[in-house]
Amino acid sequence: MSKFAVATLFFTVFISCLTVLKAQEASTPSSFVKPLIGTNGEGNTYPGAVAPFGMIQLSPDTEDVLWETASGYEYSDSSIIAFSLTHFSGTGIPDLGDIRFMPQIGKPWLVQGPKSNPDSGYRSAYSHKNEMASAGYYSVLLDDNNVKVECTAAERAGMFRFTFPKTDSASILVDLSKSLRWNTIWSNIRVVNDSTIIGFHAVNGWAKERYVFFTAVFSKPFDSYSIMSDGKRVFYNGYRFRSSSEASGKNLQFIANYLTSNQEAILVKVSVSSVSTENAMQNLAASIKGWEFEQILANTRKAWDRELGKIEIKGSQEEKETFYSALYHAFLTPILYQDVDGRYRGLDQNIHKAEGFTNHAIFSLWDTYRATHPLFCLLQPKRNADMINSMLAHYDQSVDHLLPVWSLCGNETWCMIGYHAVPVIVDAYLKGIKGFDAERAYQAVKKTAMNPDYDNVMTYAKLGWVPCDKENEAVSKSLEYAHDDFCIAQMAKSLGKTEDYDYFMKRAKSYKNLFDPTLGLMRGKDSRGNWRTPFSTHEYVEGGDFTEGTSWQYSWYVPQDIGGLIELHGGKKPFLQKLDSLFTFNDNTSSNVDDIQGRLGEYWHGNEPSHHIIFLYDFAGEPWKTQELVHKIIRTQYGNKPNSLSGNDDCGQMSAWYLFNAMGFYPVCPGTNYYAIGSPVIPEAYIKLDNGGIFTMKANNLSEKNIYIQEVTLNGKKWNKPYFFYSDLKNGGVLLFTMGPKPNKKWGTEVNFGELETSR
Amino acid sequence: MSKFAVATLFFTVFISCLTVLKAQEASTPSSFVKPLIGTNGEGNTYPGAVAPFGMIQLSPDTEDVLWETASGYEYSDSSIIAFSLTHFSGTGIPDLGDIRFMPQIGKPWLVQGPKSNPDSGYRSAYSHKNEMASAGYYSVLLDDNNVKVECTAAERAGMFRFTFPKTDSASILVDLSKSLRWNTIWSNIRVVNDSTIIGFHAVNGWAKERYVFFTAVFSKPFDSYSIMSDGKRVFYNGYRFRSSSEASGKNLQFIANYLTSNQEAILVKVSVSSVSTENAMQNLAASIKGWEFEQILANTRKAWDRELGKIEIKGSQEEKETFYSALYHAFLTPILYQDVDGRYRGLDQNIHKAEGFTNHAIFSLWDTYRATHPLFCLLQPKRNADMINSMLAHYDQSVDHLLPVWSLCGNETWCMIGYHAVPVIVDAYLKGIKGFDAERAYQAVKKTAMNPDYDNVMTYAKLGWVPCDKENEAVSKSLEYAHDDFCIAQMAKSLGKTEDYDYFMKRAKSYKNLFDPTLGLMRGKDSRGNWRTPFSTHEYVEGGDFTEGTSWQYSWYVPQDIGGLIELHGGKKPFLQKLDSLFTFNDNTSSNVDDIQGRLGEYWHGNEPSHHIIFLYDFAGEPWKTQELVHKIIRTQYGNKPNSLSGNDDCGQMSAWYLFNAMGFYPVCPGTNYYAIGSPVIPEAYIKLDNGGIFTMKANNLSEKNIYIQEVTLNGKKWNKPYFFYSDLKNGGVLLFTMGPKPNKKWGTEVNFGELETSR
Repeated sequence: MSKFAVATLFFTVFISCLTVLKAQEASTPSSFVKPLIGTNGEGNTYPGAVAPFGMIQLSPDTEDVLWETASGYEYSDSSIIAFSLTHFSGTGIPDLGDIRFMPQIGKPWLVQGPKSNPDSGYRSAYSHKNEMASAGYYSVLLDDNNVKVECTAAERAGMFRFTFPKTDSASILVDLSKSLRWNTIWSNIRVVNDSTIIGFHAVNGWAKERYVFFTAVFSKPFDSYSIMSDGKRVFYNGYRFRSSSEASGKNLQFIANYLTSNQEAILVKVSVSSVSTENAMQNLAASIKGWEFEQILANTRKAWDRELGKIEIKGSQEEKETFYSALYHAFLTPILYQDVDGRYRGLDQNIHKAEGFTNHAIFSLWDTYRATHPLFCLLQPKRNADMINSMLAHYDQSVDHLLPVWSLCGNETWCMIGYHAVPVIVDAYLKGIKGFDAERAYQAVKKTAMNPDYDNVMTYAKLGWVPCDKENEAVSKSLEYAHDDFCIAQMAKSLGKTEDYDYFMKRAKSYKNLFDPTLGLMRGKDSRGNWRTPFSTHEYVEGGDFTEGTSWQYSWYVPQDIGGLIELHGGKKPFLQKLDSLFTFNDNTSSNVDDIQGRLGEYWHGNEPSHHIIFLYDFAGEPWKTQELVHKIIRTQYGNKPNSLSGNDDCGQMSAWYLFNAMGFYPVCPGTNYYAIGSPVIPEAYIKLDNGGIFTMKANNLSEKNIYIQEVTLNGKKWNKPYFFYSDLKNGGVLLFTMGPKPNKKWGTEVNFGELETSR
Repeated sequence: MSKFAVATLFFTVFISCLTVLKAQEASTPSSFVKPLIGTNGEGNTYPGAVAPFGMIQLSPDTEDVLWETASGYEYSDSSIIAFSLTHFSGTGIPDLGDIRFMPQIGKPWLVQGPKSNPDSGYRSAYSHKNEMASAGYYSVLLDDNNVKVECTAAERAGMFRFTFPKTDSASILVDLSKSLRWNTIWSNIRVVNDSTIIGFHAVNGWAKERYVFFTAVFSKPFDSYSIMSDGKRVFYNGYRFRSSSEASGKNLQFIANYLTSNQEAILVKVSVSSVSTENAMQNLAASIKGWEFEQILANTRKAWDRELGKIEIKGSQEEKETFYSALYHAFLTPILYQDVDGRYRGLDQNIHKAEGFTNHAIFSLWDTYRATHPLFCLLQPKRNADMINSMLAHYDQSVDHLLPVWSLCGNETWCMIGYHAVPVIVDAYLKGIKGFDAERAYQAVKKTAMNPDYDNVMTYAKLGWVPCDKENEAVSKSLEYAHDDFCIAQMAKSLGKTEDYDYFMKRAKSYKNLFDPTLGLMRGKDSRGNWRTPFSTHEYVEGGDFTEGTSWQYSWYVPQDIGGLIELHGGKKPFLQKLDSLFTFNDNTSSNVDDIQGRLGEYWHGNEPSHHIIFLYDFAGEPWKTQELVHKIIRTQYGNKPNSLSGNDDCGQMSAWYLFNAMGFYPVCPGTNYYAIGSPVIPEAYIKLDNGGIFTMKANNLSEKNIYIQEVTLNGKKWNKPYFFYSDLKNGGVLLFTMGPKPNKKWGTEVNFGELETSR
């Protein structure tokens, strides 16, 4: 076979795929999606194929140990271990990466081999020039064996296309023994016919007990196959029968062997289930009928266009790529987590059927309550209700009578702090999102906030703060509880529960107890009321009073009572002075949190506690500083490159921050109905609401230099407040900015704190 | 507390229980059951509480490592480890022993402690004088802490009653980390309220992957509780929440703590499921409503009386105890293996629902096809059909397209040889047992016997023997396949499949190929047709040509063609000479099989390959020798003592052998409709058939000396054949023996081999 022949064939395959993509590309939103954004550095996204909120994510893994490569793929790695079926988008902790597939040529490797020597395992070198990632599609050429791998995915199933050179020793390895970072507890596999395998593995990882059942149907019957257990073939040995078609164990692999002709494509349809292999097979049958790779891709692209088309924007290619990729990343998690028959494995490890809703999983709530779920209120109201119902099902299944904290496919990880299912539920409730039972939700919200065992919540309720001698991260917890409690109060009020309103509003003021006026910062207090001493304002202490940061990031966390916080500082002037210093001061003592980047002084955009801070200028009379900072952050920490995300995307929160801000506003306090106005970075956006309304944002005169708001009209009226309300956009409307190169310091100074508390 | 007070209280409790038992005892069959029979030595039965064919078996474990204590309990042990929920009856390999319960006083032990020092763990000394076992009931006083433990069981749930002395440190340990001999893969536990726990463990043991879900409801709310993981308490540590009410891991234990008053009884209701904890809870709710220990016991005793009452006998106390205990042991396995909703975990690890039948599990087919299932044809026809449907479901779920060989709760162990689901199915089919689809069963039977991968079956089919150079246990396999094939032929003939009949009858003659006329014994042959050389007739070789024995036991295995075997020997005279020598010769070279006892020369009654041999005398003109040997074996190897079983009861086969023979006949060739006549050891028996007919057996003049048949009348006619037919008893009838002290060598010499093949 000449090199020319190979090249020609590759070109043909490449073209056939491109044809499909090109046909749709013209100007559809999905054509701007660059899944590789965030794969280099801290973003922790993955480049693989996935449908919107899809249950299965076919994606390459380059790393399976390092904490900082939680999605399995790091752009700067030069070899791919394999392609697995499930992936996190943007988390800070690795897990998933279930059930690996890897094509090989020659004697199949059973070990993956280290990065330093990809040739000593099934791992293969690859080059970004032979890699292509788009919405619903990923392909790469494996340099080690000249096999092209393509992935696409439907809702509950996906397809690999492995294009082999001519060889008598092609094989496809399915490795059940691995996941990202953690341990396989157990697995089994069965070869049910000449081209189909089923199996499962259970993983004890970040999720303490997680079951992934799968099936894989190969387009070509195996020439031969073997199951390997602990590296040895499982087969009948002439004594008493032992099946060569099934095995159980901790370390199982399956190898399908093939003789291939030149550029022969072998397709593998795959699906997963949390319930059973039977359900995995049903999911596959329901999701993918035939063998048309291009058709599956085309359908998924349509689905992406439908979802991404909910916002139409004008802007440059780079802006569109940045914007639609952010929207794509925001629309990945929480994932669909129920089989085609509605069943899923719940928190109690029993199999439940979702009745009247569609169950979702992977709730990174400490992150996503801030902007992701508020974004869903606008763009995914039905799905947001599904997510709330999923959280209520979790609550019902919880022996601890708690809503999810950081839930992961039928597991609670107890990761991060607070009870931030609350703001998600309350925000949706206050915005009139239909589809969940408000009274039931309220009971869950209240019960969660009254749990006598959870993280000293009830001590906080009694004392007014989480005592730092009893509990780690006591200041961060106190502050976040206070906001959550504010949310409960709002819902209580709306439901006519006046006593509860008063009770939780009292708790919502707890932040005041931790403000040290001598420092102008929040500070730990012990159970006797004494300040944390000694107290280093800047140094991060692991297991100290602050969560992934210092008092500098956390001292601003009073979204529910910004006026109150300003008062604590003694008024706007000292408040602004302090706030200004946040963006300039940095003594670099926080060495233990070097995975949090995007730093402007002590403002750390790469992590969520900072996400609302720049909008505080709005409420202290200097909205032009908010405007400046929006542009600064977006210019330096977002973009269309693999390294464009400064921090973990955290299941879409970093992206959701961008999306709101690109359009000029931000939900600074979930659980209220107002948005703070920032400064738009794209010239036009049209939000197509579910009710048919369109909310239009236009920024006249916007340019790289014209980043300051000169004036605003909202629904035809001049608007001088640095915020507006959900009611101003929920049926559609027009937000018109006029931009200029210099701050208009008079604009946006009209603040009425009284109207910010929704239910008041 | 005085010793006197304790004694009085114990007496009261003891009396209350005795009252229940006494009320029923008068003369009900269950009152004669002594579950301890077979617990001392090789019998491997368990003494605990169980309902007929019950899904749960609450029983004490004294040993969890040794192979030879497969049921967990050895009578000669002087300490009890704990009480677990599941047990084998009579197997040769340990497994089960799932989910241990153990009451303690003082600081709870988390380790069991060795037999040599029961005080160094939760294991407790006990004495047989404080132990009581009867049908559905077991109790013992634990000497270490003076706690009385009682167990009773319904179909899918059981109850413990722990009677404590007055103490402030009572506790009940639930240990999920152990089973009999094998490894826990994983487990989880949840405390769902103040008195209920649920959980599961998965075991990789004899069954490669077995899941036991359970629930336990305590009659008294826990004063406090803890979950231990790897010996450390699982609880919230002040950092971020970790539930103290649930855990997952490999080594989990739960401890319920109580302050108890003197002689306070704490009851624990328990249930199991192969499906889920939800199903375990449903099973419990359906099986046991309230807290009346005595009522549960009374119901189970009624159930036992109903089942055991299917045979009424006359005889001495010892005879009744021996007989009804054997019937009890025969009615334990295969166990009920489906939840109250009909669901169970199948061979493919998917959850199946049994439609139109009741699923059963634990098929020790190499043993039970011989006499246990033939006994079920008479006494449990409906349940036998359920068992056959269970085997067909297994077949449907088998990737290897095989009926069960030795199946264990959703697992195939591949233990022992042959395809003996076949004689079970064919025997039931030929006897007209209703309730399964004959054509479907035939397809499964045939497919199983034609499997190209299973133990060289197809090589045997081609060559006429299993070649000993290709396969271990080649002679035993050849001989047993030949009988199985005979059975298939009978079913084929009955279904009008003449070609199949001819084909399998040809295979059924394969035994002839391995008869070495120079030795008068069966001998291995290699794939080129050469005899095994060198060949030791008596020495057992592990992995040699014979299964758990030597040529001496196996050379008689031609139940399907006894006439043909006699011919091979050159006629009755040389045949009888050889057969006589079996019972006298023993060179003790078979040292590797010392767990098989009950030896009369080279006849080893303690293992199944010998079970049909003594009836060969019937067909060679010397039925008086059969008669003599029946009495000799029953006198020396059965009885009412813990050590009365000479070999593994093997899920009822040893007991079923006794039951038939006690009544004077035996199904020497399953898959035919005749019974060989032996010699009754009880004077009267009345078999109450499902169709309302009663089959009466009377043995006039029977005594310890009068063991020889003088004459027989069958249904009123003089009977001189040493066998009779299923048709003679199936609608009821009378078999009347007249016994005497000397053989009547003329009786029973009328043999017509032609009429023995059923379908002929």
